Amino acid sequence: MSSPSSPAYSRLLSSLRRAHVLESVASVLGWDEQVNLPEGSVACRAEQMTVLAEILHAAATDPDFDAALRELEATPGALEPDASVIVRLARRDFDRAVRLPSRFVAEKARLQSEAYHAWAENRRNSTFSPYAPYLEQHLALAREEAVFQGWGDRAYDYAIDRHDPGMTTERVDALFTELKIGLLPLVREIVAGTRPTAPGLFRGFPVAGQQAFLREVTAALGFDYRRGRIDVSLHPFCGGSPADVRMTTRFDVDNPLDSLFSSIHETGHGLYEQGLRAEHLGTPLGQSVGMGVHESQSRLWENQVSRSRAFWTHFESRFRAHFPEQTAAVDSETLYRAINAVEPTLIRVDSDEVTYNLHILLRFEIEQRLFRGDLKVADLPAAWNALSTELLGLTPPSDRLGVLQDVHWSGGAFGYFPSYCIGNMMAAQLWYTALAAFPGLEADFARGDFSRLLGWLRTEIHHQGRRYDTQELVLRVTGEPLSPRHLLRYLRERYLPLADARR
Amino acid sequence: MSSPSSPAYSRLLSSLRRAHVLESVASVLGWDEQVNLPEGSVACRAEQMTVLAEILHAAATDPDFDAALRELEATPGALEPDASVIVRLARRDFDRAVRLPSRFVAEKARLQSEAYHAWAENRRNSTFSPYAPYLEQHLALAREEAVFQGWGDRAYDYAIDRHDPGMTTERVDALFTELKIGLLPLVREIVAGTRPTAPGLFRGFPVAGQQAFLREVTAALGFDYRRGRIDVSLHPFCGGSPADVRMTTRFDVDNPLDSLFSSIHETGHGLYEQGLRAEHLGTPLGQSVGMGVHESQSRLWENQVSRSRAFWTHFESRFRAHFPEQTAAVDSETLYRAINAVEPTLIRVDSDEVTYNLHILLRFEIEQRLFRGDLKVADLPAAWNALSTELLGLTPPSDRLGVLQDVHWSGGAFGYFPSYCIGNMMAAQLWYTALAAFPGLEADFARGDFSRLLGWLRTEIHHQGRRYDTQELVLRVTGEPLSPRHLLRYLRERYLPLADARR
Repeated sequence: MSSPSSPAYSRLLSSLRRAHVLESVASVLGWDEQVNLPEGSVACRAEQMTVLAEILHAAATDPDFDAALRELEATPGALEPDASVIVRLARRDFDRAVRLPSRFVAEKARLQSEAYHAWAENRRNSTFSPYAPYLEQHLALAREEAVFQGWGDRAYDYAIDRHDPGMTTERVDALFTELKIGLLPLVREIVAGTRPTAPGLFRGFPVAGQQAFLREVTAALGFDYRRGRIDVSLHPFCGGSPADVRMTTRFDVDNPLDSLFSSIHETGHGLYEQGLRAEHLGTPLGQSVGMGVHESQSRLWENQVSRSRAFWTHFESRFRAHFPEQTAAVDSETLYRAINAVEPTLIRVDSDEVTYNLHILLRFEIEQRLFRGDLKVADLPAAWNALSTELLGLTPPSDRLGVLQDVHWSGGAFGYFPSYCIGNMMAAQLWYTALAAFPGLEADFARGDFSRLLGWLRTEIHHQGRRYDTQELVLRVTGEPLSPRHLLRYLRERYLPLADARR
Repeated sequence: MSSPSSPAYSRLLSSLRRAHVLESVASVLGWDEQVNLPEGSVACRAEQMTVLAEILHAAATDPDFDAALRELEATPGALEPDASVIVRLARRDFDRAVRLPSRFVAEKARLQSEAYHAWAENRRNSTFSPYAPYLEQHLALAREEAVFQGWGDRAYDYAIDRHDPGMTTERVDALFTELKIGLLPLVREIVAGTRPTAPGLFRGFPVAGQQAFLREVTAALGFDYRRGRIDVSLHPFCGGSPADVRMTTRFDVDNPLDSLFSSIHETGHGLYEQGLRAEHLGTPLGQSVGMGVHESQSRLWENQVSRSRAFWTHFESRFRAHFPEQTAAVDSETLYRAINAVEPTLIRVDSDEVTYNLHILLRFEIEQRLFRGDLKVADLPAAWNALSTELLGLTPPSDRLGVLQDVHWSGGAFGYFPSYCIGNMMAAQLWYTALAAFPGLEADFARGDFSRLLGWLRTEIHHQGRRYDTQELVLRVTGEPLSPRHLLRYLRERYLPLADARR
């Protein structure tokens, strides 16, 4: 059996490790760009990233890498089970990397940079037309990329598979259709029965206090601050690498819940990264499965866990201790309702966990039409606004608040949005599995103890790396295929009582 | 004439640029390590730095680089003057890089890392013997390196030349001997005539106020915060790259002058880096000459400029505005005397600008004896303590406060210490040249205007890059060879009046 002592396997591991280390370097620079970079140093950073991308591509397509793989593939029976998974996925990654001509990689990188700046400027001005040509080019490249990769005209399937291995348009469509049927009446029922949070309920929460409280919460959830940190950036994200996780958040003195739940969301991502097995870092067994599974982790901690009554049974007194005056006039039930407020909004990133899914249904529908050729880029704003009116009951008064709100397409990241909703479905499915497996789990939370849940996610999800694709993983961990039923059940159980109580 | 349009010259420039960009990546990571790195992520960073060092070495020794140089060297008369400088120095750098076998580079890197940790631990415990073997190995490698580089047994000359191109042991010895003859009686006179700052004179200066004031000062000196920043680290330093300068400082609420002058010192380094010509970045014309010249810039801004009465004529009221209560009991003369307090101390980095030079004379003497073989590593502590007693009048009560105080030797950085004193001499020499060239220069400072001095340094020093070596540069800018006379004159003029006044 091929073990780490086999020369070819050792060579493979060191090639993978080197590529991983270079990626982690790019990742620190990417984090630094959002957190620290002086405004006048943007061009310098772009040049650094370009040189690194070139070196990374060379590392990922190194002929020695291929030679080691061929040698190992020649005697497949000789591979240990873990080695076999690593060889299979490393081959997939290598082939995907070499199939793209350098010319194409460079063209896409250039377009990403140009389209990003065009997007930022046109979003500011709320003008769609000047941005449209960039989207046209990205669509053309996405189709070209699928052909290079051997997916023929299944360009959208390829785009989805890149973010969630094993997923297809057909499968996502089936899941989302079922979700939509259940979700639309549920949203109407919840919204009709609840009132939005009173304006000005939260005022004057000093940043230092918010920082201290979120640190207390995220450390209790299990984030290891000896191997990670949290800083401030315009848009919260989780960057860095598994051995040095760099999360970010943002602070608003009049909206402490935004910062707190953003931080918990990023902590969910961070816990997944920190949970990847150190001995496998750099190999496919030390990498996350994809965006949907990643999002399931962030959503589970943010929503199912941290918006629960059990969580606040423990943390409410801690929150009040940090902000005694600011919370004096807010009773427990009002606080809980503010944490779980539901109200349709035009902007995805500002939305609650119930209506969030409608934003994704909208984008999935738009992306399908674009890739089928049913929708021209020029007609995107009208299509967006019509779907927004239909799904959310809100018509964007400007493209800034509509089709231009998200950064993703400017980077050519089609097929990414569905992952958010896949993550939401998976989070709920994991949640009910965990509740069944661990009697009294919520009582743990009420004592500030999250170790049983984290331990289970570590073993079942984090330690698996990319061993299974998205759907296999869900099936193995929860005992049934991915389904929207659990998300619908969870939303009903958490939100209908709040709606009823307000009637 | 060879211009940027010649193919070989273009290839050379892009090889140089690529190496520069990779170096700047390593530099951001180095900064991040001191400022942000979580304690548990040290091994991850070490691995990143190792991979980067390998890629950097490959870039610096790329055969294409050599081929482009050979092509350009074949027709030396065809080169424009700037191109000719670039080719000459790029050749020197290339040859120095290829002459070192990879085995040697890896061995030195490993030793640096191990010796650093051994140093840190033994400094903490104040134990010299367990650290001695690392110094022995570093000395052996330094001798070996000189042989590889063709310097034969002139290992200490090579070490000095690496930090200050063109300098030799003999030349430094002549300069330092002259300095010592003038300095020793001067120190005695100043110390006898002044009293140390009263303990507790400065208490309770909030960090936020210190940050605001130092930002005001350093921006007024000319540091461009659109292309740089200042953060906090254990030991202040100036890192990053010319297009993205990353300075650091540290704060002590009971010692606001330490943070302020550390920041101004690093600002001097930062101004030099920001003053390198953008169009030459990556080439020897866009690089600093060496450590001595670098230190001349930091010292000039820190000492000659910012400890002057003229500087404080402008900034005293600003300082008091930031700290009205804390400075209420400190009159102007007391403040000025605290800024220019002189008192021998065991620790180099805590010393004033007068006695600082004695610390360097000590280290230069020690390094010479080590390289001549007159001093065994085992006898270092005794030799150190004897010289400290002789020069500073202070005997270290422990090796932590003596021979183990500095990090440099743990990295094999012999020949580095002299640069500090070369910088001090050069700063004073530049100072008198500037005073003669710009009548009323100090009156500028009293109005908070430093632009004439900075403009002159930009043209005379920063814009020259590595065109001239240390001694040529001093000769061209000041009209005479580097000499300690100016430093001695400056110290007499600034400090003797303070000593006299206290008698």
